Amino acid sequence: MFDTTLVVVGNVLAAPEWRRLESSGSFVANFRIASTARRFDRENNSWIDGNSLRVRVSAWRRLAEGVISSIAVGDPVIVYGRLFTRDWKDDQGNNRISYEMEAYSIGHDLARGRSRFARNTPITA
Amino acid sequence: MFDTTLVVVGNVLAAPEWRRLESSGSFVANFRIASTARRFDRENNSWIDGNSLRVRVSAWRRLAEGVISSIAVGDPVIVYGRLFTRDWKDDQGNNRISYEMEAYSIGHDLARGRSRFARNTPITA
Amino acid sequence: MFDTTLVVVGNVLAAPEWRRLESSGSFVANFRIASTARRFDRENNSWIDGNSLRVRVSAWRRLAEGVISSIAVGDPVIVYGRLFTRDWKDDQGNNRISYEMEAYSIGHDLARGRSRFARNTPITA
Amino acid sequence: MFDTTLVVVGNVLAAPEWRRLESSGSFVANFRIASTARRFDRENNSWIDGNSLRVRVSAWRRLAEGVISSIAVGDPVIVYGRLFTRDWKDDQGNNRISYEMEAYSIGHDLARGRSRFARNTPITA
Repeated sequence: MFDTTLVVVGNVLAAPEWRRLESSGSFVANFRIASTARRFDRENNSWIDGNSLRVRVSAWRRLAEGVISSIAVGDPVIVYGRLFTRDWKDDQGNNRISYEMEAYSIGHDLARGRSRFARNTPITA
Repeated sequence: MFDTTLVVVGNVLAAPEWRRLESSGSFVANFRIASTARRFDRENNSWIDGNSLRVRVSAWRRLAEGVISSIAVGDPVIVYGRLFTRDWKDDQGNNRISYEMEAYSIGHDLARGRSRFARNTPITA
Repeated sequence: MFDTTLVVVGNVLAAPEWRRLESSGSFVANFRIASTARRFDRENNSWIDGNSLRVRVSAWRRLAEGVISSIAVGDPVIVYGRLFTRDWKDDQGNNRISYEMEAYSIGHDLARGRSRFARNTPITA
Repeated sequence: MFDTTLVVVGNVLAAPEWRRLESSGSFVANFRIASTARRFDRENNSWIDGNSLRVRVSAWRRLAEGVISSIAVGDPVIVYGRLFTRDWKDDQGNNRISYEMEAYSIGHDLARGRSRFARNTPITA
């Protein structure tokens, strides 16, 4: 089977956290994103909030560098990546499950602002 | 913002549960699905398991009827729908979050078997 | 970059065509699918047709076998796969572009009928 | 049925074109995007180009304004939207079909650069 991919359009809930991997020297960044759907309520003839989605996003290597240097709390973003679950046990020994999204691509949502973009210089082989 | 849609290709973990809504007489069905990605391990030159995703799926009305009459535990399926989170408190008063997928469409995966299909008769208006 | 994946929920426009590859003995099947969105027209308080999408779908190997033995013209299906373009020249030498979808998974849409499913017997290694 | 959504991660092929609608005073912008998949060739133990996708993208209103003020030819972007087809006749009277994507959200790809983002000021009601 395949990785399960999805795209989330929402807002960054807190400033990204990051660290540098000792083994490779490359970066990893994490943040949480929230997206709330809007739907048209035909009875009241107006738009109302639908369901929400909140999920933890991780970014690696070049994407982590772009996130660390570009994204702040509250930013409207579009995130594309794969979704998976992790199984773990809490302090009481209960089985727990966490959802996480590893991003392939992240961008500021140009429906809600403007961006000035500077492309990475290519890595010389 | 929009509903966050995704497609999951995986296996049904337990027989669907269902009930009939008193208010409308329509059905709702639930089951859990699991999907495990396969990825090519270049070091060992072989395919290995990647991450897994398990998620609860709900189906409503006509789709629930199709699920109830067609899907059994272990079936390989493809599920398309929207993902959202629910917030709740556990017995100790801790804030908890659950992930759920409301399906728009579900089908048996023809990459892993054959199906004989009978279309619904149209509802007379 | 990545393959561009999408899911189409629609109807099969003509009976699948298929052939067997001489080189490997495996199958390939093709059909066209059409999907027409429905949207709520707030001015007239009713549902109307939105845009349509028609695209050619190809299926390979085990999926092709499932398609050949299971799918007929008009069937409501859900198709998940990757979209790509082909460049070609027509008889007048004009540059032309075609869109094609290679399916990863295909199923009958249980929102519009019922299916009886028989799983493939595993291939003995 | 539903709109068919997809996300394309690729490069902008030419500077966006735009115009202002006389009726509403709002903007619409168009550009073409290209995405080429990379896949691992196990026989030669190296990454090679897979299939490509090129498609025309349209953006409306606030998103068009963000595109016009932010996107240049060659920019790496992520585009999320819905795909549909248009039927038309060419000069010889042949039936032709075009594919178009109406974007819901567009962003610069932070895997390939850095962006400085300025959020739109809210519209006073």
